[in-house]
Amino acid sequence: MNDTKNRPGSCDWLPEDNREVATGSSCDWQGSPSAGAGDNRSAVYPFQNDYTWQGVEQERYKAEDCGWSDIARNVLVGGRGESAGFDLRYFEIAPGGHSSLEKHVHEHVVIVIRGRGNALIAGEVHEVGFLDTLYISPDDPHQLINPFADPFGFFCIVSHDRDRPRPLDRDELGRLVATAVGSKLRP
Amino acid sequence: MNDTKNRPGSCDWLPEDNREVATGSSCDWQGSPSAGAGDNRSAVYPFQNDYTWQGVEQERYKAEDCGWSDIARNVLVGGRGESAGFDLRYFEIAPGGHSSLEKHVHEHVVIVIRGRGNALIAGEVHEVGFLDTLYISPDDPHQLINPFADPFGFFCIVSHDRDRPRPLDRDELGRLVATAVGSKLRP
Repeated sequence: MNDTKNRPGSCDWLPEDNREVATGSSCDWQGSPSAGAGDNRSAVYPFQNDYTWQGVEQERYKAEDCGWSDIARNVLVGGRGESAGFDLRYFEIAPGGHSSLEKHVHEHVVIVIRGRGNALIAGEVHEVGFLDTLYISPDDPHQLINPFADPFGFFCIVSHDRDRPRPLDRDELGRLVATAVGSKLRP
Repeated sequence: MNDTKNRPGSCDWLPEDNREVATGSSCDWQGSPSAGAGDNRSAVYPFQNDYTWQGVEQERYKAEDCGWSDIARNVLVGGRGESAGFDLRYFEIAPGGHSSLEKHVHEHVVIVIRGRGNALIAGEVHEVGFLDTLYISPDDPHQLINPFADPFGFFCIVSHDRDRPRPLDRDELGRLVATAVGSKLRP
């Protein structure tokens, strides 16, 4: 488990106040859904063919200037008072979109379920598709990118209590840009 | 998080010593993979069309007398020294097979990715299929059953440190059998 419990500041490619970011006025990441909204009961979330789940709200965002763009989020587990120590979210990156290039202490587990995309992890780029699974280790810089024509969708599992993502510093970014991977990065 | 950390005794439908159970000589559950085998590096596990993952060992078991039957397990995250507080496993139940009917303090999150099956949770039965997602709350009795002709495969996410599953006591089992759900149970 992570020893940082800075949950109110945790991130995940999405803002706390949708309207602020929708208007481009803030890049402050506040991705955690409000806890305690539910009662920790067992639940079934039927999948719907448009890659949403019955009973799970879909959130859509577009922020070109905040290090990420064109991402939808569905929080399947983690926002309804569940006692699990981990959250399950579904993210979908539109064609041409990407997540922020970032690092953090908490781990990511990513399972691709829709389309294809590029996963940049610690200086390597992996093209990934259906059910390919990624483990992203603490503090490995990473970015998920959709250079393709179809939506790129994946589950992302994280600890419920997690640290706030950080951008790369200038030196780290410089080293990454200098590699073959640099051409794959999105600003 | 769970406050029980009885990890060496944790379960998950599979035994520690495969050979013992393969010969039917033990029903002792010891499902956790050995930790510390890896180095906590980021990793990519490409999906293969037979529902295995490159770099992930598949374990197959058959034990008719242990409360479960005909289950394959792939531990994608949790057995290689990862620091994540949760494990990601893929289970596949053969036609006619089922998991044990059990309860435990730790939560399950289940994502179906292959075929269809029945999920019995706390007195209700849900027929589930592709990408349907379940949250199973602490101490809710549950069983996953494949009454269909094709394999029933699903991811199951659990806390890495978790308590040992327990069978239902006679009264609980009696109440469950007395319900409409009773006819769906597997012994």
